[in-house]
Amino acid sequence: MGAEPRSRQETLALRKQLIGSSCKLFFPEDPVKIISAKGQYMYDENGNKYLDCINNVAQVGHCHSEVIRAAHQQNLALNTNSRYLHDNLVDYAQRLSNTLPKKLCTFYFLNSGSEANDLALRLARQYTKHEDILVVDHAYHGHLTSLIDISPYKFRNLEGQKEWVHVAPLPDTYRGLYREDNKDPATAYANEVKKIIDQAQQKGRKFAAFFVESLPSVAGQIIPPPGYFQKAAKHIHSAGGVFIADEIQVGFGRVGKHFWAFQLQGEDFIPDIITMGKPIGNGHPVSCVATTKEIAEAFSATGVEYFNTFGGNPVSCAIGIAVLDVIEKEQLQLHALQVGSFLMELLNQQKAKHPLIGDVRGVGLFIGVDLVQDQEKRTPATEEAAIIVTRLKEEFIMLATDGPGRNVLKFKPPLCFNAEDAKLVADKLDKILTELEKREA
Amino acid sequence: MGAEPRSRQETLALRKQLIGSSCKLFFPEDPVKIISAKGQYMYDENGNKYLDCINNVAQVGHCHSEVIRAAHQQNLALNTNSRYLHDNLVDYAQRLSNTLPKKLCTFYFLNSGSEANDLALRLARQYTKHEDILVVDHAYHGHLTSLIDISPYKFRNLEGQKEWVHVAPLPDTYRGLYREDNKDPATAYANEVKKIIDQAQQKGRKFAAFFVESLPSVAGQIIPPPGYFQKAAKHIHSAGGVFIADEIQVGFGRVGKHFWAFQLQGEDFIPDIITMGKPIGNGHPVSCVATTKEIAEAFSATGVEYFNTFGGNPVSCAIGIAVLDVIEKEQLQLHALQVGSFLMELLNQQKAKHPLIGDVRGVGLFIGVDLVQDQEKRTPATEEAAIIVTRLKEEFIMLATDGPGRNVLKFKPPLCFNAEDAKLVADKLDKILTELEKREA
Repeated sequence: MGAEPRSRQETLALRKQLIGSSCKLFFPEDPVKIISAKGQYMYDENGNKYLDCINNVAQVGHCHSEVIRAAHQQNLALNTNSRYLHDNLVDYAQRLSNTLPKKLCTFYFLNSGSEANDLALRLARQYTKHEDILVVDHAYHGHLTSLIDISPYKFRNLEGQKEWVHVAPLPDTYRGLYREDNKDPATAYANEVKKIIDQAQQKGRKFAAFFVESLPSVAGQIIPPPGYFQKAAKHIHSAGGVFIADEIQVGFGRVGKHFWAFQLQGEDFIPDIITMGKPIGNGHPVSCVATTKEIAEAFSATGVEYFNTFGGNPVSCAIGIAVLDVIEKEQLQLHALQVGSFLMELLNQQKAKHPLIGDVRGVGLFIGVDLVQDQEKRTPATEEAAIIVTRLKEEFIMLATDGPGRNVLKFKPPLCFNAEDAKLVADKLDKILTELEKREA
Repeated sequence: MGAEPRSRQETLALRKQLIGSSCKLFFPEDPVKIISAKGQYMYDENGNKYLDCINNVAQVGHCHSEVIRAAHQQNLALNTNSRYLHDNLVDYAQRLSNTLPKKLCTFYFLNSGSEANDLALRLARQYTKHEDILVVDHAYHGHLTSLIDISPYKFRNLEGQKEWVHVAPLPDTYRGLYREDNKDPATAYANEVKKIIDQAQQKGRKFAAFFVESLPSVAGQIIPPPGYFQKAAKHIHSAGGVFIADEIQVGFGRVGKHFWAFQLQGEDFIPDIITMGKPIGNGHPVSCVATTKEIAEAFSATGVEYFNTFGGNPVSCAIGIAVLDVIEKEQLQLHALQVGSFLMELLNQQKAKHPLIGDVRGVGLFIGVDLVQDQEKRTPATEEAAIIVTRLKEEFIMLATDGPGRNVLKFKPPLCFNAEDAKLVADKLDKILTELEKREA
């Protein structure tokens, strides 16, 4: 704010003093101070340029001029709540509806993926009049009380599992219950869903929803076998529940072939509710829930108003529209498909060369590199993954790990990430893996 | 977005088609389309100028140039998550800590008041290892699952009261249990808190928190008697719980005499947790929780990370800092005190003149006018209140009602609201009340 910028050490000291320590830093021992960013690059206080392979919020690239211009123009005119009529709200809803199956025609706007997932829960419960929620193992759906409860990734370390929460096996064909050698893993995993529903129903439980990320992310960049959602949807529908697809991390063109990740399951699959967050405002706090007329009507039938102070304000909607414009104009979905395929190719070349890489999986610019200590046993190479990420940081590349074993390198860069960037990160990975193998030899 | 603006009817039709009908409009029969705003004024598509008496989000005035400039400058440089070090985050926390008692020294940043209240719940429960929450009647704390549960204003119309929720009488000295004729209403209402705690404890319940707005707003612009919080805090502390002051609607200088509304209770009162929202970003989605070192440490002792994707990003923090700057530079707290006192004076003149006004109460620019059918019985004049608000809209003044009887006119304008605006609304109110009385005579 005009004053002399603080040194990194001073900023760190103030952060430790003032900010709750549950809010973690990347590389807590030696955190990075970022002061500016553009496209897929971030810059620290010394002018070092980092390649950002992980920020799936800055979807169309950090500080995109069109998005910033839209925000500024609308900020100059009006920013108020949605109790007044405004064109941006309906224009944005209309634009989103153009990307979705006709059935998903009613919209709610909010400020974060967590708010969206919480509203999805409320919609499902109001519509079904049931309480129970089925999730997949290692899932993470947000930081709110209601979402910690449905996130095995979190609740296992906190209060534990509530009686209304049920956990199905993660449909992971690399290290899950049914693997690449299974003839029909979609059916096998869907049968697990059915089994859990049946068992719970026998105890008198009633299901409101199957709540699942279209591509489970913190669970380790998982690509569920196509057809799994259709079969699981059939089972949850039979139990009177709805299917909620969490697209917060993976929607908006990231998967390349489609605009929405749930569409990877097949043309015939349509969820009952989808939730959107992270990328939709390119960093601005905005999120959305889309659902069917029937579910929306059941929700409003209570007569109770849903009011979200900032949700659907003209600035958030202007930004959302600008993000959609940029994705279209710059053909970022196609770009994600092409660069993602190229990066997969490069990573598969590394896999052929380095025994530490057990699996390379992904679609578009959502890719996981599963590191193993042993190709047969697929033991997670947790320590090696941490070393690689730290070494990459020293090479000015931002990458992170995920998965229950923290051994999956996750790529989810801004969609403007290009072939040259892909080449750079693959080369650096090659170099570091070679170093590691030499050290271990 | 460059296209011909839609007609109001067209916008309304699209809204009905695309937006969940639980999201209500002001004046649903004849809603207002607002296309721009400046200071305390809003403009519709025909250029009509409305005086805004209710937007407590646009705290320093709609579209304030300094706030917009801060947003734009930071948007041009960087908007990313708080896993990297950034000065804005620590600067903002430091600025907020300067407004607070030393004890409240740890900060969490989020995107909405609802997110803040949910985190406050999590903090209280983690710290106390208890579950139960005590609230006051008619309270509203937000739209999330966990907050509907602690909001009698909402849960009474939905699933009802959870076994872990306890409701104390609203400390309303005009139409509550203990009134202006009670010698010590603070103690009388605090004893009710004690009674409820005692009864619940006898059933084995354990309290995590007393959760209360510093000035209950949707409950009808209530001013709790000074000293009530101290005494209630003693009781909740004895039960092992903490005191959470919800400042979302009422903080940031609105009450005039103090920066925070809880300070109206007396110099000796400090909550254990306070939550902030609505006004802090002047419309930008930002919110905050401030708490003690001990509570923050208990929360992080679980080892579980708290990550909020957009929370504490450099843009939200830059905006937050700019809002604090404007409040200081323009002396808006003092202004709220002066204009608020003047408006109270004018409204009390109306009270002397019109039997429909039963009570005028308020501090700074947080004022309620309680309309009654009968001065003795204090029967809420619900219908008259609705007529007045509609008539005021025809006079281009935006006012709204609140309270369980929807009979309390609530004033909570942007803080730049001035003496001339106060005069205008008092005159219009006089005119409309006179009309109403003639009609009823």
